[in-house]
Amino acid sequence: MNEFEIIARYFTRPTDDRDVLLGVGDDAAVLGTTGPIAVAVDTLVAGVHFPDGTGPDSIAHRALAVNLSDLAAMGARPRWFTLALTLPDADPAWLEAFAAGLFALADRYGVSLVGGDLTRGPLTVSIQVIGTMSGMGAGAIALTRGGGRVGDDVYVTGTLGDAAAGLAVLTGRYGEDAATGAAREALAARFLRPEPRVGAGLALVGVATAAIDVSDGLAADLGHLCDASGCGAEIDVENLPLSAEIEAVCPIDAAESHAIAGGDDYELCFTAPPSEADRVAAAIEQGGIGARRIGRLVEGRNVAWRRAGKAFTPPDRGYVHFR
Amino acid sequence: MNEFEIIARYFTRPTDDRDVLLGVGDDAAVLGTTGPIAVAVDTLVAGVHFPDGTGPDSIAHRALAVNLSDLAAMGARPRWFTLALTLPDADPAWLEAFAAGLFALADRYGVSLVGGDLTRGPLTVSIQVIGTMSGMGAGAIALTRGGGRVGDDVYVTGTLGDAAAGLAVLTGRYGEDAATGAAREALAARFLRPEPRVGAGLALVGVATAAIDVSDGLAADLGHLCDASGCGAEIDVENLPLSAEIEAVCPIDAAESHAIAGGDDYELCFTAPPSEADRVAAAIEQGGIGARRIGRLVEGRNVAWRRAGKAFTPPDRGYVHFR
Repeated sequence: MNEFEIIARYFTRPTDDRDVLLGVGDDAAVLGTTGPIAVAVDTLVAGVHFPDGTGPDSIAHRALAVNLSDLAAMGARPRWFTLALTLPDADPAWLEAFAAGLFALADRYGVSLVGGDLTRGPLTVSIQVIGTMSGMGAGAIALTRGGGRVGDDVYVTGTLGDAAAGLAVLTGRYGEDAATGAAREALAARFLRPEPRVGAGLALVGVATAAIDVSDGLAADLGHLCDASGCGAEIDVENLPLSAEIEAVCPIDAAESHAIAGGDDYELCFTAPPSEADRVAAAIEQGGIGARRIGRLVEGRNVAWRRAGKAFTPPDRGYVHFR
Repeated sequence: MNEFEIIARYFTRPTDDRDVLLGVGDDAAVLGTTGPIAVAVDTLVAGVHFPDGTGPDSIAHRALAVNLSDLAAMGARPRWFTLALTLPDADPAWLEAFAAGLFALADRYGVSLVGGDLTRGPLTVSIQVIGTMSGMGAGAIALTRGGGRVGDDVYVTGTLGDAAAGLAVLTGRYGEDAATGAAREALAARFLRPEPRVGAGLALVGVATAAIDVSDGLAADLGHLCDASGCGAEIDVENLPLSAEIEAVCPIDAAESHAIAGGDDYELCFTAPPSEADRVAAAIEQGGIGARRIGRLVEGRNVAWRRAGKAFTPPDRGYVHFR
């Protein structure tokens, strides 16, 4: 198979999206839009973003999910994506599983693959996703990192630390205890197949003052939100939402460490004034995933962690490339 | 430097594009659009798309140019791009030269870098470019590969084969003859710093019936145009536009071979009915680059080559990944 046959066989599908005026197969895709678009790109590199040997369906799922998560953090509705896939060789079984994982997630969120590029080289998956912004006036941005104000509550959706614990499970750190087999599998799945919080992001438009997705770890990403908002934050470590699975598999200090510094959860961290707590609760119920208040924005620029009423120093600040 | 410092130092610049509602630095960029957009993505991999040791400014130029070329082939106006850059390490001199090459070309075509992703891994540059389509009714596509009709003339812009000859120069195939030093340098520059035919593409909207950019070689790309248009083509090899430089450096059969099968020229190959020859000439003059008629579309599906009135079999069918 050459690249054209691969694209035709695995990556060309009909779409019922009438705004895809021209899809895969020409020099560019042409997409019908009538308002602002949101654009994000994320790359996964073998051995960096996922362990060697990760299943191709999971690689595809993750590569698309992390991009959908970026749009979720903007309150955008994901519509279309392109795929730049670099492969060492063209293995039909690998391609079939990759395409299955990709389109399964794409179909769930109603996003269409509209173009891409297939090249030979070290395994690298770069996806760019385009979403539409609804309910915005001209020039108004729905959800950014920079809208938080001192006094706002800080929330996170879902549970934190599961993906980092799952990666640790996959690399053998938490052993093979049969009693926790199901929990360890669930954690690994959180790493391999993260669920983007698209519904929550859409529901939070006009409610949250700022949002970011937790990709590098809460400490790092909340730090970005604080930097952009010109605030600091105080977080109660005991309020961090931990799953039953992480509590079953990890000692509590390790679980908290994963929740604070572990990346890859793709939950949303967002802020809203205390006066909006009821609207936040309603939006979150509409968004299909729970959220918990974990602290508040304060003066200054630092993220301060407290545990049992005392200052607490987290073990790490999250994943950084080119440290 | 970590990735955030690199992005801030090398890849964050003010833009005077008021449609960039939110640029580099949040979870996604937000772009103001009021009509259809064209989207293309292309990846360059070190050692595959350019020789190891290629200067970072040329890598950046090529990575953006090949994407602008895709939009040119659609008759779209390039507006914005994202950069997914995977690097083995963060060398300030490399990054500075890369950014200089990138923004020099971006500024010439008025495109803004609006987002990206920086990761550690084998050197890979994936750029996605977004353009706007003007003068189109709803659902109407300006320039595709599929609009050619039997009897249409086939044209190419500029000259063909220079980039392939330039790559051969860079890899030592054409020696070091001092008399042809300037010509060899000019050919190498055609490979390293291709010029996207954006102006010609825009000018050909409503004039050409089909278009494609010559990235894989004329034989391969004209084949794609013929497949999409449901036609064959007859090309007179003696009509292929050859530069003075390729004629100075290469034997004529090698020059013709580069022109037929060599990729990376990023000229436009397009079609138009003979009755539109005057409008083609006017459009081409407006587009700022010459074009030459090289043959015509015929019944069938094959590209037939003729030389001195006789059938001619070209040596190769262009670059194919995963052959």
